[in-house]
Amino acid sequence: MRNTWELDPDRYFDPDPAQRRVARELYESVAGLPIVSPHGHVNPQLFADEDATFGTPAELLIIPDHYVFRMLYSQGIRLEELGVPRADGDPVEEDHRKIWQIFADNFYLFRGTPSGAWLMEELIDVFGIDRKLTGETAQEIYDELEEKLAQPAFKPRRLFERFHIEVLCTTDAASDSLAAHQAIRESGWSGTVLPTFRPDAVVNLLTPGWQANVRALGESVGYEINSYQRLVQALEERRSFFKAMGAKATDHAALTAYTNELTVDEAETIFARALQGAATAEDAGAFTGHMLMEMARMSVEDGLVMQMHVGSFRNHNPEVFARFGADMGADIPIMSEFTRNLHPLLTKYGNDSRLRLILFTLDEDTYSRELAPLAGHYPALRMGPPWWFHDSLNGMRRYFERIMETTGIYNTSGFNDDTRAFLSIPARHDVWRRAAANWVAGLVVRGLIDTEDAGSMVHALAYDLAKTAYKLTE
Amino acid sequence: MRNTWELDPDRYFDPDPAQRRVARELYESVAGLPIVSPHGHVNPQLFADEDATFGTPAELLIIPDHYVFRMLYSQGIRLEELGVPRADGDPVEEDHRKIWQIFADNFYLFRGTPSGAWLMEELIDVFGIDRKLTGETAQEIYDELEEKLAQPAFKPRRLFERFHIEVLCTTDAASDSLAAHQAIRESGWSGTVLPTFRPDAVVNLLTPGWQANVRALGESVGYEINSYQRLVQALEERRSFFKAMGAKATDHAALTAYTNELTVDEAETIFARALQGAATAEDAGAFTGHMLMEMARMSVEDGLVMQMHVGSFRNHNPEVFARFGADMGADIPIMSEFTRNLHPLLTKYGNDSRLRLILFTLDEDTYSRELAPLAGHYPALRMGPPWWFHDSLNGMRRYFERIMETTGIYNTSGFNDDTRAFLSIPARHDVWRRAAANWVAGLVVRGLIDTEDAGSMVHALAYDLAKTAYKLTE
Amino acid sequence: MRNTWELDPDRYFDPDPAQRRVARELYESVAGLPIVSPHGHVNPQLFADEDATFGTPAELLIIPDHYVFRMLYSQGIRLEELGVPRADGDPVEEDHRKIWQIFADNFYLFRGTPSGAWLMEELIDVFGIDRKLTGETAQEIYDELEEKLAQPAFKPRRLFERFHIEVLCTTDAASDSLAAHQAIRESGWSGTVLPTFRPDAVVNLLTPGWQANVRALGESVGYEINSYQRLVQALEERRSFFKAMGAKATDHAALTAYTNELTVDEAETIFARALQGAATAEDAGAFTGHMLMEMARMSVEDGLVMQMHVGSFRNHNPEVFARFGADMGADIPIMSEFTRNLHPLLTKYGNDSRLRLILFTLDEDTYSRELAPLAGHYPALRMGPPWWFHDSLNGMRRYFERIMETTGIYNTSGFNDDTRAFLSIPARHDVWRRAAANWVAGLVVRGLIDTEDAGSMVHALAYDLAKTAYKLTE
Repeated sequence: MRNTWELDPDRYFDPDPAQRRVARELYESVAGLPIVSPHGHVNPQLFADEDATFGTPAELLIIPDHYVFRMLYSQGIRLEELGVPRADGDPVEEDHRKIWQIFADNFYLFRGTPSGAWLMEELIDVFGIDRKLTGETAQEIYDELEEKLAQPAFKPRRLFERFHIEVLCTTDAASDSLAAHQAIRESGWSGTVLPTFRPDAVVNLLTPGWQANVRALGESVGYEINSYQRLVQALEERRSFFKAMGAKATDHAALTAYTNELTVDEAETIFARALQGAATAEDAGAFTGHMLMEMARMSVEDGLVMQMHVGSFRNHNPEVFARFGADMGADIPIMSEFTRNLHPLLTKYGNDSRLRLILFTLDEDTYSRELAPLAGHYPALRMGPPWWFHDSLNGMRRYFERIMETTGIYNTSGFNDDTRAFLSIPARHDVWRRAAANWVAGLVVRGLIDTEDAGSMVHALAYDLAKTAYKLTE
Repeated sequence: MRNTWELDPDRYFDPDPAQRRVARELYESVAGLPIVSPHGHVNPQLFADEDATFGTPAELLIIPDHYVFRMLYSQGIRLEELGVPRADGDPVEEDHRKIWQIFADNFYLFRGTPSGAWLMEELIDVFGIDRKLTGETAQEIYDELEEKLAQPAFKPRRLFERFHIEVLCTTDAASDSLAAHQAIRESGWSGTVLPTFRPDAVVNLLTPGWQANVRALGESVGYEINSYQRLVQALEERRSFFKAMGAKATDHAALTAYTNELTVDEAETIFARALQGAATAEDAGAFTGHMLMEMARMSVEDGLVMQMHVGSFRNHNPEVFARFGADMGADIPIMSEFTRNLHPLLTKYGNDSRLRLILFTLDEDTYSRELAPLAGHYPALRMGPPWWFHDSLNGMRRYFERIMETTGIYNTSGFNDDTRAFLSIPARHDVWRRAAANWVAGLVVRGLIDTEDAGSMVHALAYDLAKTAYKLTE
Repeated sequence: MRNTWELDPDRYFDPDPAQRRVARELYESVAGLPIVSPHGHVNPQLFADEDATFGTPAELLIIPDHYVFRMLYSQGIRLEELGVPRADGDPVEEDHRKIWQIFADNFYLFRGTPSGAWLMEELIDVFGIDRKLTGETAQEIYDELEEKLAQPAFKPRRLFERFHIEVLCTTDAASDSLAAHQAIRESGWSGTVLPTFRPDAVVNLLTPGWQANVRALGESVGYEINSYQRLVQALEERRSFFKAMGAKATDHAALTAYTNELTVDEAETIFARALQGAATAEDAGAFTGHMLMEMARMSVEDGLVMQMHVGSFRNHNPEVFARFGADMGADIPIMSEFTRNLHPLLTKYGNDSRLRLILFTLDEDTYSRELAPLAGHYPALRMGPPWWFHDSLNGMRRYFERIMETTGIYNTSGFNDDTRAFLSIPARHDVWRRAAANWVAGLVVRGLIDTEDAGSMVHALAYDLAKTAYKLTE
């Protein structure tokens, strides 16, 4: 006998019947709202071509998703066995049914994890799978997925529509031609897919391949970037191009939130060293801290929302990086600090409502200690949603409980799925909506708010705040 | 139709019926106890004059309360529009009905925040307002408040009595004449209002106006403070005066918990530099660290309870500080450390039961990591209650859950309201009593303690611990 | 009338009836499993001699247990009054009934603490005490305990059997002869008691008595340890001896998780300085960081599981240390960091499944920020259970909620009791099993997992993971 698989209609709600009843009502009032996805990493190429497909089940759900394969890797399964391409082009597993079998055999590892919950929800809700994924059912489920993926209804654009996505923002390098976005616009398709300006590859002097990145940026603007001032000029021009292409926001990843303004001479000196391949770690830190100030200035001028994602020690595992490259599940958070690091930036721009700066952290200790008080004071700040490892039921609970009493919900930004796994988008937003409804229901049953406020708060968390924080209403 | 407004009699309790029943019984056993307020910032002048009043509703609830106006400021409302006085005396909004209207229009920002809960409780319980504060009801509620505030029953002394306050401790500069306290004593009024000795303004060498503060201290003792040893002598004399005026405690705010003893020569050298206006940040840190040691010594000698509040980066927003001064909602917490920083002080005085040192933190990570183990070992230490941003339902829950298993409740200090908003005192203590009852009820329904212990614990948390920790029984 | 005392059969479960029902069923499915205790500090001598006894009730429950006497000390009770032996041999209280009376008079201090819960469970479940321990019942309970402790059924080996302990691992100095373990093996008794190799006393150059420790190690291998390379050789030989005596693991306590490889020359230079008594704090840090690398290398070679316990500032109270020595309840946690500190070790050995490195922290902020992502990626890593101050109901809840979504349970290691209090072992494991069942039940009632997975997860947490993590199945 095989286990049937189904989704609990009351999933993620607290078990207390009173709270659950309120949570369910609140959830139902927002469950059908369109999805607003203001930050993520879906490849726009999926929507540029009417006939694009998702490939095999392994290509869809395992090979490109570091959330998934890092868990298998942690238990000693080699990435080559999972078909993850090697940097040196050496062969890896090509039999996607074998890869799927390993995944199914080890699916128990995901018990109680958000990845497990999203995958289950994708298989049931998107593909109609009605039995539990195990080693035993692996191949028949593979058959079923393969058959579905070949149908027109499972092409990316059709799923975009079925998922009821109102807007999907991608993340794009500063030098990107945005050709895929151009193709989407010209195709006449009704879906809204917008670019986001992410200049890390040219701003962080120690990015592998920085010099090539700077050359590519130069090509995109038609002149050589041979000075700091040229870099600033190029970035301004590219922001303007992105904005013309519909971009609403920029995104900046940094190891720390350090900000500090350099003089033009200091910036030129560091940039010159970098062009010669001689930039130090200190140079890189100083330059990033300065460029964040510059990015805030540009946002004041052009109105693009500025996002900062800080605190990830990227590529912590040199062996995995050498063999497979970046984004391989080996990015590990570090302790973060915002109060002092952002002081220069906030001193200069924090009182200016033309700046909208959204902050993300991987160090939850900064929630109640630094970020909630900062976002609860400075007009320019908004708190971003729980990010990455904290995009989970407990992560959201901690976020609500440690942030909201100090910031109030109206200084937050709704939800980001931040995913490259397009199929997981509905599941991720559904977790957020359920978690938000459950948290607000907890306020109701504790007598903190009335049901009128509750309905309004859940609507804001599920939909409005993402739109207003990212200026998607403009 | 207007929304009626009422307080849920079971507010703040967990929804589970079994826990709620126990929580309610425990709460009811302490709800009527007098309020002990051993630390706060209420202006004693309110009670010095029999005829003092609270002014307009805006003067009572908005203009002086940075908890309230910082939230409005974070959403782009200028402090001038809220009537907050400018440092340069430039005009600000004087129409208090307009200020009240802005507040009411934006009262939704406080949904789910402790400020929102306190304000609602004040309006309902103190003033008998029976409908929700909104833009629409703003003016009629203003009328009602204004009418009430003009009545004798709403004068400060009458509310002090109605609130059933057993003792209220204020916070007073080392140079303060305590004239208001003297007037209260001489008035024959039965209320107990005690001063607290806070020497930060002369101990922290970088306080704006430090030299003037030192001069004022000199005037209060009748000799010039021209040396470190004179400073120590003056502080000893002033402590003695405060004690004679009923003070039970001192209070010390510092950026960090750093303690370290200097030689007299080192202290004199730094003090001399400070008198010349040449003290460095390093000097200030060293001097504060040394003076905390001295304050512990004096407490051993005179028996005054010593409070330390650390971890706030004061006046983080230079523009707001320049325009409006200190205490404007722009104090932001930083990461804190106690284990190493307090080591010198605890090595010297930690085993001495004559010292009673109560510790407060804005960095909740130090709860389970450092403060609970320290207070659970050193006889001189007591853990202070959740402070400032953490004086909230979730803040209290985290405090109970992260502190108590290691310290035990008898190494804690009950509750502090720490407020300058006199009207919020009953609401704040009520939240604490409910949160404490709910936490203890959680222990009962989980079989950890019996109901006899539970009753005793809730009584201790609601009343006894504050009295014993602050030596108010002596 | 005296209060009766009994254990709630549903203790530690959440009160919600639906969750409680599932939790109870899950708990009952594992309550009878044997106890696997892979890390602790029980004295093996207790089992070496068939006729060993536990002494008086005070010797059993108070005098040797710093969890217990530090709480009494924090309230001003002198350790001498509790019979804790002084380092200088000066007399301390010898009347164990008096000690017991002080303990009972102050037993209320333990309300809501894990120590209180364990003690209650020991008295009720092990000794059949049926009324509450208070000052009034102290002497009659003492009588009853004394009478029971004199019975054969209360000898250590009999309780080991009654407690259904499958395996108990002790912690032993590198130079230890393991005579007690040898005696156990030769006695023909069926109990499994295994040694664990802990070389801190010779690896940490600043350990009090380091030179004597090195001499003792030399004696255990039969040659003088006059160089770093001799030290490494000796440690390898001792590991080999421990392994032959049944050891499955090593254990390493360090102030921080710092790791970094020295050259042999650098290591020799530092070691030479240490032999001359001239090692600096910097030397000690560098040497410990290097030796952790060496220990990982040896574990790759000999297969012993490596445990790291970091973050305790030992002997924080110099007065208590001088008077009573180490392990006196004055060890205070500090902020910890793993992402950067472990980078050298993980770069070299983290991808090698032959290494099994189990990490413990006293800084819970590292749970979700660093340790869960690390253990959720590196094949060599497993996350250790909540440790010391966090071995409590709330500590476990935080552990489950902050670790598991990212690591998945299969990168964790089940439970350690880590205790020297043998009698508390069943109570501690019972808290874990109940807390685990309750947490998994919470996943079930929230629709995250099905009951089949739930049963399997609770079995893993209660039993399997400890066995596999510590290679006790081999």
